[in-house]
Amino acid sequence: MQNISFYHSVFLAHLEQQVPSKQPTSLYDPVHYILQLGGKRLRPILTLMTADAFSNDYKKALNAALSIEIFHNFSLVHDDIMDGAPLRRGEATVHEKWDVNTAILSGDAMLIMAYQLFEGYEVTTFQALAKLFSKTALKVCEGQQYDMDFETRDDVSVEEYLKMIEYKTAVLVGAAMKMGAIVAQASKNDQEHIYEFGRLLGIAFQLQDDYLDAFGNPETFGKQVGGDIIENKKTYLYIKAIEFSDDDDKLQLEHLFSINPTDVKDKIDTVKQIFISSGSADATRQEIENYTQKAFDVLDELSIPESKKKVLRDFGHDLMDRRV
Amino acid sequence: MQNISFYHSVFLAHLEQQVPSKQPTSLYDPVHYILQLGGKRLRPILTLMTADAFSNDYKKALNAALSIEIFHNFSLVHDDIMDGAPLRRGEATVHEKWDVNTAILSGDAMLIMAYQLFEGYEVTTFQALAKLFSKTALKVCEGQQYDMDFETRDDVSVEEYLKMIEYKTAVLVGAAMKMGAIVAQASKNDQEHIYEFGRLLGIAFQLQDDYLDAFGNPETFGKQVGGDIIENKKTYLYIKAIEFSDDDDKLQLEHLFSINPTDVKDKIDTVKQIFISSGSADATRQEIENYTQKAFDVLDELSIPESKKKVLRDFGHDLMDRRV
Repeated sequence: MQNISFYHSVFLAHLEQQVPSKQPTSLYDPVHYILQLGGKRLRPILTLMTADAFSNDYKKALNAALSIEIFHNFSLVHDDIMDGAPLRRGEATVHEKWDVNTAILSGDAMLIMAYQLFEGYEVTTFQALAKLFSKTALKVCEGQQYDMDFETRDDVSVEEYLKMIEYKTAVLVGAAMKMGAIVAQASKNDQEHIYEFGRLLGIAFQLQDDYLDAFGNPETFGKQVGGDIIENKKTYLYIKAIEFSDDDDKLQLEHLFSINPTDVKDKIDTVKQIFISSGSADATRQEIENYTQKAFDVLDELSIPESKKKVLRDFGHDLMDRRV
Repeated sequence: MQNISFYHSVFLAHLEQQVPSKQPTSLYDPVHYILQLGGKRLRPILTLMTADAFSNDYKKALNAALSIEIFHNFSLVHDDIMDGAPLRRGEATVHEKWDVNTAILSGDAMLIMAYQLFEGYEVTTFQALAKLFSKTALKVCEGQQYDMDFETRDDVSVEEYLKMIEYKTAVLVGAAMKMGAIVAQASKNDQEHIYEFGRLLGIAFQLQDDYLDAFGNPETFGKQVGGDIIENKKTYLYIKAIEFSDDDDKLQLEHLFSINPTDVKDKIDTVKQIFISSGSADATRQEIENYTQKAFDVLDELSIPESKKKVLRDFGHDLMDRRV
């Protein structure tokens, strides 16, 4: 197996080479634009790494990895319309740079292109990849819908929230790894376990994203610390704080999450204080730790040499320490 | 083989039974809504009819037919957003009844659901259907993009226009029939010919739609006669009229297609007069006739009994006489 930057660079070379420049350019230019904005390419790297772990051949997983990355970017293009987001990775979103219609239609084309990338695989692999892809993609849509539904609800339970982030984020991480295993013709057992590893790590990662949004280091987090608080986003931290708080703190928190002050510093400070004093911050860290540990436990079930498990475990650690 | 109303009713029963009611309802309610708005169900009927013609078994084509109908409705939901259309089949469009975000996301889910309907077929059929579907779906997106691009261009050639309607409309008719042939395990030759029949008939149908929009009987056309003229839509009639007209008529036509008068009657009458006097109306009728005849010629190549060809030919005639 190789290191992460190796998989990263072979993936980028494949992306460069494989995404066609076709007519009409008004449809395909936005596809190239969003795919070349960058990002950590975590999902396709996981696909390549998993294929390599099971078969010592990452190359045959390149198209599956590209499919996952194109799907992920499709979901970003459409989600950015829905969120009215002006920026993605520091650059204009597709609907800002072009317009909403272009973003809708180019996104649709990307979803179809993602399926087409399975066509080079032999027929049973094709079927396995396409079925997994559809099942996963539909869950991602459902997760996005839950996320939007939750904006107007004030009774979202922890279970509902965890299901939402599982669907919106984690199943795609699981699927990215399972695709690598499918292409490598790993056993069904190994396929299921690597999916679980990715799914659990995906949940841990998203919970950590919630946590760092409030408590991260502004120098290294990459997004504005306190962004979720400013936007009144009811993340795991908020739901747990409401659950743990006495009536006074609960009322104050609900009030703070109903206003949009121009000076945000006081709001952020007060909310963070309640996240800590209520025990929500601790509970969130504990939940991240639980999911991460559960993910690593699943690795023990895999029928690959310990040296390869270690590569996956190291990747998981790096991810949870945000070094990748 | 059966008559059209038979295929229509078995298809509706299948649709009723097979489209799942799932959570979150905010994602799937719009799917049910658009699918139950009605419409002629031409595409799925063609799938069933074709399967019956090649194998005397329409039943195994029911899921392929449903896939085609769900895809068609996906494209309507997203196109209606792009066109800002308030009504579809006389009822509120999805983005009007709910909102744009819901229409985007429910449409995305429909595109994925369409792929999932192939999963019950054995593996080589699954692959053939999914590949044809992707190829066709991408062309439909390209056709929609060309259509939008053409709105801001005044130099669209007849060839470009024909390609646009082929992609946006006709390839899906061809694919609907080819899917019936694939499921029926027809020969590759028969599969290609039935695709051609559908494609050519689809182009004829769309050209006829352009023609009837100007010259149709208001009692039976179903849409407002003159609608394309009011909206300055540069259809085949317009492009041919510009090609055939002297400088005066050309200038007048270009002027009329740049204004939006409140009283539309004069504009419609003048434009129709130029369509006739320039020879464009005749040329359009001739082109419809050419494509229809080419479609029927392809039927001769099929390896099925004349009695079954007759059913397909009768359907084509009914379609072009707008009795179905």
